[in-house]
Amino acid sequence: MSLQTIPARHGKAVHLKAGQAIEVINTSGTQVVDTWAFCPEDLEHHMSMMHTRVETSRLMPAVGSTLYTNRREPILVMEADTSSGIHDTIMAACDRWRYEHLGCTEYHRNCADNMLEALAELGLDFGHIPQPLNLFMNIPIEGDYRLVQGVPPSKARDKVVLRAARDCIVVFSACPQDITPINGGLPTDAHYAVID
Amino acid sequence: MSLQTIPARHGKAVHLKAGQAIEVINTSGTQVVDTWAFCPEDLEHHMSMMHTRVETSRLMPAVGSTLYTNRREPILVMEADTSSGIHDTIMAACDRWRYEHLGCTEYHRNCADNMLEALAELGLDFGHIPQPLNLFMNIPIEGDYRLVQGVPPSKARDKVVLRAARDCIVVFSACPQDITPINGGLPTDAHYAVID
Repeated sequence: MSLQTIPARHGKAVHLKAGQAIEVINTSGTQVVDTWAFCPEDLEHHMSMMHTRVETSRLMPAVGSTLYTNRREPILVMEADTSSGIHDTIMAACDRWRYEHLGCTEYHRNCADNMLEALAELGLDFGHIPQPLNLFMNIPIEGDYRLVQGVPPSKARDKVVLRAARDCIVVFSACPQDITPINGGLPTDAHYAVID
Repeated sequence: MSLQTIPARHGKAVHLKAGQAIEVINTSGTQVVDTWAFCPEDLEHHMSMMHTRVETSRLMPAVGSTLYTNRREPILVMEADTSSGIHDTIMAACDRWRYEHLGCTEYHRNCADNMLEALAELGLDFGHIPQPLNLFMNIPIEGDYRLVQGVPPSKARDKVVLRAARDCIVVFSACPQDITPINGGLPTDAHYAVID
């Protein structure tokens, strides 16, 4: 498959067959890509960061890490990562309430709605927003367990390769956050390609 | 309300009115208490650790921290804590798959089923298991983002007070984990009391 665009501030959903992989490209170097994965036969069976943390004993996946579902089954494997390896698994997708609390008085695009829109483009509906794997997102943990909204330390065209351990639907959102610095202040396009 | 028991390896669910508080007591000093909170009028609106982490910019709540729902509304406030302040917000509730992966060939009691059983005792049904607030659970983050299953550093009779910011149902599970050291090797009773 040729290179596809995840347009700035928007989402995309992609079917993957077991054994296929998807390359996620941080084209600008500063774009967070919120990532989910669902089992097509039952969307309630989906990738789960809280279960992955227990199964892998890691706060964030590294090259070789398996990503698990909420039934603790392998769904994706992080096969390659040219970035610094900094990703986030603990921050909720941004949503309309997040932007209201940040002072927005009009609708602000957000990762939660992007996930729902991307699934709807495949004719699918899902009732809640699981914790995403926030690729390239930089949330340092400071003293006294304070969390900082950091700028991504990745470089332009850094990429992560995720290989499907089973048939799944992968959903991406090019995060629209432009109030905190997590996307370097300017949401941009990201790209992906399905590879065999 | 007098002191109530959360029996070792079991769950309990309690209605709280806005303004009431609940004291959660680590009677043995080594017992993790998985904790959830739900809005009675819509269980899909519930306490959410991933949203709380964003809203409070903290990995774990401290005295004075508000705990937020998945719609980013206050649901509980951590009003007091006599423990070392070490709690966990990132590890999934243990479930039957966890114990299968740890080698159990027969049913092992688990926090996920305890949550469902405790809600069922109130005549309620819920379809998925949110990330719990794991009171007194000690998961140090080591170099290279490795997570360790630690022994609770709390003392016998340490307690946390959670005050309801709105009417809610609080659910506890005295974690049945007896294979890793997170309950000091021996699951025990914990206790609670509703206070006004």
